[in-house]
Amino acid sequence: MDDHKIRVATWFESLRDSICKAFEALEDSHRGALADRPPGRFEKTRWQREDADGGDGGGGEMSIMRGRVFEKVGVNISTVYGRFKEPFNKQIPGAELDPHFWASGISLVAHMQSPLVPAVHMNTRMIVTTKAWFGGGADMTPTFPREDDTKAFHAAFKAACDAHDPGYYPRFRKWCDEYFFLPHRGEARGIGGIFFDYLDSGDWEEDFAFIRDVGRAFLDVYPRIVRRHMDKPWSAEEREALLQKRGRYVEFNLLYDRGTKFGLMTGGNTEAILMSLPPEAKWP
Amino acid sequence: MDDHKIRVATWFESLRDSICKAFEALEDSHRGALADRPPGRFEKTRWQREDADGGDGGGGEMSIMRGRVFEKVGVNISTVYGRFKEPFNKQIPGAELDPHFWASGISLVAHMQSPLVPAVHMNTRMIVTTKAWFGGGADMTPTFPREDDTKAFHAAFKAACDAHDPGYYPRFRKWCDEYFFLPHRGEARGIGGIFFDYLDSGDWEEDFAFIRDVGRAFLDVYPRIVRRHMDKPWSAEEREALLQKRGRYVEFNLLYDRGTKFGLMTGGNTEAILMSLPPEAKWP
Repeated sequence: MDDHKIRVATWFESLRDSICKAFEALEDSHRGALADRPPGRFEKTRWQREDADGGDGGGGEMSIMRGRVFEKVGVNISTVYGRFKEPFNKQIPGAELDPHFWASGISLVAHMQSPLVPAVHMNTRMIVTTKAWFGGGADMTPTFPREDDTKAFHAAFKAACDAHDPGYYPRFRKWCDEYFFLPHRGEARGIGGIFFDYLDSGDWEEDFAFIRDVGRAFLDVYPRIVRRHMDKPWSAEEREALLQKRGRYVEFNLLYDRGTKFGLMTGGNTEAILMSLPPEAKWP
Repeated sequence: MDDHKIRVATWFESLRDSICKAFEALEDSHRGALADRPPGRFEKTRWQREDADGGDGGGGEMSIMRGRVFEKVGVNISTVYGRFKEPFNKQIPGAELDPHFWASGISLVAHMQSPLVPAVHMNTRMIVTTKAWFGGGADMTPTFPREDDTKAFHAAFKAACDAHDPGYYPRFRKWCDEYFFLPHRGEARGIGGIFFDYLDSGDWEEDFAFIRDVGRAFLDVYPRIVRRHMDKPWSAEEREALLQKRGRYVEFNLLYDRGTKFGLMTGGNTEAILMSLPPEAKWP
């Protein structure tokens, strides 16, 4: 298991590096609105998990960029371990009797300057209790959905899924649609993507290969979609619609998102968890 | 009991009318920033509770004003009845075995244009199941707290409490401090006020008189505080601080506020419930 943990944490770190490089390249090549500003650069902040009584530890690294294409994008990696406290251990497979856990993951949310460029979220993680599994997903939130972007986003994750199990894509896409939904608005958060949890096929190498393909699919498709639209001019009305769409994003993350709630309730790093919130939002 | 219900609902409606009139008067007398805009006026929207299977009903009235002093203020009154659904009835005193309820209340949140004028919340309500009680509270959220405002706000509610029971104010002020707290930030929402629930002294007339005094205390003190500061000029930095403070307000309301969560989960009117969210907020 130690070898698995090291390989997983190393992959998340290298994926983080690739994503940050790709996003900075988009900042460099930007020729649209706000191009008079300097291209954005990621700033990294390390944090350590507090170790009140010796049994918990680990930490992570937040990378945040405030740029001229990416209004605010956070890419977090973390590797933490310890014991789930009552009553949270009851909700975690394999932690009911022995609360020890280890978890490593990458989590990303991008809020864009242009209302014509979709916001996006991606995360993948491995959790170890007395069981071990992978989870993750990616979903896109355009203010003005476009058929070609939606198709490209879904096609990328379908290909990543299909290379591993033909049952994955239909199941994980449906799970995503059900998860990223605001019942009080009767609205989806965006155009969907994939969402999965408790993934343990019995073949760890195969599951880890799938997790890597999900990361690579994101790294391929999202920058392509950004590049299509980032140089286009937008109107004040379109920007206003973006800010209101972001209000819904805030509602979802604070009312329903399991990761956000679980992280805050279990004493996670507040700044890292709430990095998903948009830089500006409106409820007019 | 029918007589009590009618008197309570009538009081909330008349308090609503008095508050709206007082707030519109502040809009009229404003001489500070944005005074080139016309004074704001409340717009009212009635809504009916959906009655899917005949047993539930009632409705309410939202009053919303977007003005030059009040950037966005919502004053809601509602009177609804029906049956609490499983599992929510388990959380409500007197509804465990018989889920029928009746509820009437007034709820108000004001977000101000000026970062020098505190935001405010006030609500009072009566709930009837097989038991009957009052609840409510008021709390103030300045971006830049001032000793004189804090003192005036607390003094008004202390006087309202002390006229009925010397034990009320210390208990309800502490309850407010504990309730309007963001544990993940280690921060209070604002400077506090009072908060109470399940109030049933055994003397309904006395409890209703207290509820009226809470409303009157608000109607007296808050417009006085607004008037002290509304004509003062403010800086872009102060406005930015206001927008970030509002981000915390959103966090509290969506992560912790019982009324918000309970309302949304039990199929309440989404627009009325989320009227408490600020018109604009930032997480830079």
